[in-house]
Amino acid sequence: MTKVNVFVTLRESVLDPQGVAVKDALHSMGYAEVSDVRIGKFLELTIDESERDLDTAVREMCEKLLANTVIEDYRYEIKEEERA
Amino acid sequence: MTKVNVFVTLRESVLDPQGVAVKDALHSMGYAEVSDVRIGKFLELTIDESERDLDTAVREMCEKLLANTVIEDYRYEIKEEERA
Repeated sequence: MTKVNVFVTLRESVLDPQGVAVKDALHSMGYAEVSDVRIGKFLELTIDESERDLDTAVREMCEKLLANTVIEDYRYEIKEEERA
Repeated sequence: MTKVNVFVTLRESVLDPQGVAVKDALHSMGYAEVSDVRIGKFLELTIDESERDLDTAVREMCEKLLANTVIEDYRYEIKEEERA
């Protein structure tokens, strides 16, 4: 059993209206020092052992389903294997 | 200028229907080894220098706006300061 953390973020060049809304809300709450907010997704996958290569499988999942690679970037970290 | 990464995740005890939907989609794509998916938010804050303590400010922002602490947990990491 392995835990994989996937981070999906909007590409730098893509506008992030949700991030702008949160930044504006923080400003109106008095946190004027916040100059930028970008919001992405954070996915925690639990993956059982299989004959497939983990790294390849995770990359495929990101490309095919988890990220929209036209507007999003992704990165992932494979955590220490855990014995069930 | 400091970058702060905030991770907001649903508490363990709270159902995550979006995660279940993604898990089911991965299964139907042939990735049967994925046993669990939990989906959270990942926020990248850029914070200018201020007289406020950064750690306290970030914790306040999480408690008041970024996370709903009734159903969500949060953690954050303060990245190396960057000279503008």
